[in-house]
Amino acid sequence: MNDTAPQGTLQLRKVAIDTYQENVAYLSRDCAVYRAEGFQALSKIEISANSKRIFAVLNVVDDPQLVAPGQLGLSEQAIRQMGLAEGSPVRVAHAEPPASMDAVRRKIAGETLTREDYGAITRDIAEHRYSKMEMAAFLVASGQTGLDREEILSLTVAMTDSGERLDWHEPLVVDKHCIGGIPGNRTSMVVTPIVAAHGTLMPKTSSRAITSPAGTADTMEVLAKVDLSPDAMHHAVRRERACLVWGGTAKLAPVDDILISVERPLGIDSLGQMVASILSKKIAAGATHLLIDIPVGPSAKVRHTTEALRLRKLFEYVGDRLDLHLEVILTDGSQPIGRGIGPVLEARDVMAVLRNEPDAPFDLRQKSLRLAGRILEFDPDVRGGTGFHLARDILDSGRALAKMEAIIEAQGKQTRQFALGHLTTEITADRSGQVTAIDNFQLSKIASRAGAPMDKGAGVDLLKKIGDTVEAGEPLYRIYAEFPSDFNFAQNLAALNKGYRIEPHEQRP
Amino acid sequence: MNDTAPQGTLQLRKVAIDTYQENVAYLSRDCAVYRAEGFQALSKIEISANSKRIFAVLNVVDDPQLVAPGQLGLSEQAIRQMGLAEGSPVRVAHAEPPASMDAVRRKIAGETLTREDYGAITRDIAEHRYSKMEMAAFLVASGQTGLDREEILSLTVAMTDSGERLDWHEPLVVDKHCIGGIPGNRTSMVVTPIVAAHGTLMPKTSSRAITSPAGTADTMEVLAKVDLSPDAMHHAVRRERACLVWGGTAKLAPVDDILISVERPLGIDSLGQMVASILSKKIAAGATHLLIDIPVGPSAKVRHTTEALRLRKLFEYVGDRLDLHLEVILTDGSQPIGRGIGPVLEARDVMAVLRNEPDAPFDLRQKSLRLAGRILEFDPDVRGGTGFHLARDILDSGRALAKMEAIIEAQGKQTRQFALGHLTTEITADRSGQVTAIDNFQLSKIASRAGAPMDKGAGVDLLKKIGDTVEAGEPLYRIYAEFPSDFNFAQNLAALNKGYRIEPHEQRP
Repeated sequence: MNDTAPQGTLQLRKVAIDTYQENVAYLSRDCAVYRAEGFQALSKIEISANSKRIFAVLNVVDDPQLVAPGQLGLSEQAIRQMGLAEGSPVRVAHAEPPASMDAVRRKIAGETLTREDYGAITRDIAEHRYSKMEMAAFLVASGQTGLDREEILSLTVAMTDSGERLDWHEPLVVDKHCIGGIPGNRTSMVVTPIVAAHGTLMPKTSSRAITSPAGTADTMEVLAKVDLSPDAMHHAVRRERACLVWGGTAKLAPVDDILISVERPLGIDSLGQMVASILSKKIAAGATHLLIDIPVGPSAKVRHTTEALRLRKLFEYVGDRLDLHLEVILTDGSQPIGRGIGPVLEARDVMAVLRNEPDAPFDLRQKSLRLAGRILEFDPDVRGGTGFHLARDILDSGRALAKMEAIIEAQGKQTRQFALGHLTTEITADRSGQVTAIDNFQLSKIASRAGAPMDKGAGVDLLKKIGDTVEAGEPLYRIYAEFPSDFNFAQNLAALNKGYRIEPHEQRP
Repeated sequence: MNDTAPQGTLQLRKVAIDTYQENVAYLSRDCAVYRAEGFQALSKIEISANSKRIFAVLNVVDDPQLVAPGQLGLSEQAIRQMGLAEGSPVRVAHAEPPASMDAVRRKIAGETLTREDYGAITRDIAEHRYSKMEMAAFLVASGQTGLDREEILSLTVAMTDSGERLDWHEPLVVDKHCIGGIPGNRTSMVVTPIVAAHGTLMPKTSSRAITSPAGTADTMEVLAKVDLSPDAMHHAVRRERACLVWGGTAKLAPVDDILISVERPLGIDSLGQMVASILSKKIAAGATHLLIDIPVGPSAKVRHTTEALRLRKLFEYVGDRLDLHLEVILTDGSQPIGRGIGPVLEARDVMAVLRNEPDAPFDLRQKSLRLAGRILEFDPDVRGGTGFHLARDILDSGRALAKMEAIIEAQGKQTRQFALGHLTTEITADRSGQVTAIDNFQLSKIASRAGAPMDKGAGVDLLKKIGDTVEAGEPLYRIYAEFPSDFNFAQNLAALNKGYRIEPHEQRP
């Protein structure tokens, strides 16, 4: 033990290792505390000092240069969370297994959990008491037995309560959300400036991509800063009536973000989790009125309107009980929206629509106007049925573009210049004919493998959409990547399955 | 990059951190490879040199003292697996997500998987391509939708094929297995010497505890070495016709051990996984004849005989198809067997039975004789129905004790002396009456929290069993622990629920 430390404590030491979302603590194998408490490598420990307490996975160190007996090493994120200077005295103890894992095991056994259970689970997750393995168990279990609508309501309330809640002190605070699954589809970046230009408050917080090649936050980041402090976000919204920021820094439903960090690598996505995730984020962000876009199509997340209707009822059930005015709209999910898939390419499409460029993607424009129209009609002063025309006027007049530029200005212009990936190849048609289907899932996967959204310039640029005629050998789309291994992954995937169906033109008899 | 290393390679460096079951690689944030390949903290990478290849989780290092640019650090177990000297050139690449995760996602969606799917999953797990999170997803999914009997057969075959397979070159190789859930219950340590004293070959490999306070390997380790090399194990078996060792070193169905390292902290246990886990281990260990003990009781793993019968059919279905002669026996699981719970206490009970001590636990003796009798009858020369008496003769004559001492000798006597934990307390009866129920689950949990099986001397010693009369204030059991925090955990748990039901004696009218 170190002579200067009080009895039973260890000296805090920073270990310059980045362990990302997981706290890791390092303890010398020769440390008296390690031996006395019988800690095991990879068990969870609780580290405390004064009123501060964090949980971390324990790694055992056999090199006194790294961590000496009497010291407790913490990885970079763990020491940030602890918020103490190196050398501070800390205490360590075995972390008791999270009590709410009993509820998770009941869920695994097929039981319905109570509101108290969900409260306990989210509190334990928020306090970093769960390992990723334990969260995976919770997610798979609730995905598989399914959550009934009371459970979804409970989980929504619990996740909302797990973080901050914004209050904009206005009666009308609008928001929109698309349940995802459609590549491209960056309507929020067109809708938000239109709605804000009308004067309606739309403080849009978005997530980064979960399993897709880009989320709105990833694409907006090509143009502006998106990881604003809560103060900076409020400042932008007060000035421009809107923002387009990443929701993570605002600490809205933080448990949702932690769960997403497990869902993403596992590639799983459950209905009940999705409804709770979306609504908790929106309620925490202070929305009073919400439009939910459910794209329906053979390769969309939702394949049939019957499924979409079931989902709509779930949204309505939870929304109504939580005083959120909520409308659901079903849209065409048969193919990607716009042409680009990946942050830089999608930002290009969005700006083309806002600038009214003649070759701007028509489908992105039309869908954005339809959604914006419905949101504008949340305003009691807008007559039912006139929203679409109002939205079109705002877009065509250039007021939406001006608003977007003002929002970018208010959030802070992006200082880094993101270019398209320099590794590029064209994927061509095997036969002549007409494009009759595009597989959203496959195109997303190809863009993801190419490096999107981590590499902003990576992705896929579609040159043909459904209904277009192609000649054999003509390019269908272009892949962009920044790194050779990713480029190969994406090419291999496209070689396996291009994701396009081309059917020959009918022969005249 | 280091000047002496060939182009594109990194110099291997040992990082003296023990990361237990998980490989961790450390790469400098300033390393050219890190930047060029766009690696992300906590992503999985593949490390290769010549024909050797391992997978590891990546941590990013910001301290050149720890790992300099041009070096690749590996944690202690990772460098052991790699089997190369420090300074050796290695290559790194992004690890592609394991292809078999697609099958896991299909399982999550409720599909039935094929034999090829299970083969692919176990191969990927054996190659350390799965993160613990991904394994948790697989386990929960297959626990929840359940595995049908064809799937259990497929998984058994796949897990058996994942490792070595012992061949004893004899027509009769017997084994026994208890599905667990009953604390104490160390019958294998009585049965094996009885059977071996008869001359029947019984090379018993056991696991360490999964969620219980002790496995047979944990308890045997109090008396003898149990982590024998395959050669040493063969030597012991050839000499004494039996052994009582930990199965881990023999590399039998290693995927099972990896999955158990996830099941254990999660505290989950699924029927299909259990059948496949047990049978793959036994087949890999070379057993031709197997007796399976299913304890049934209100707080046992199996609560009703209908459930036990369903389980029996599953064992029979898989066993028959894999040419394993298998018999299932249902036993009384209404309370712990013997008196001690925890390695040192259980070893004491076992030796008392083998030594024919007058106060040896009678239930442990009787159950062991019953099981041994059934196993002895696998021998074609033993007349049906005479096994029990034969077993009793062997035990009473002292031949079983002599055989146990010879087995301990052959495996190597334990050199460490394990004492009972020095922290101890007695839990007393709240009222006078008769003990009518003991909760196996609660007693297991108290013994586990006290530190068993990690601390061999920790556990619970029962002073009263079902049917005994007690006075209010009389001790029911004693808790032993080695460390204060564990001692408190166990006491708190017992304060919450002692795990005993005591009913007043009926009053005379």
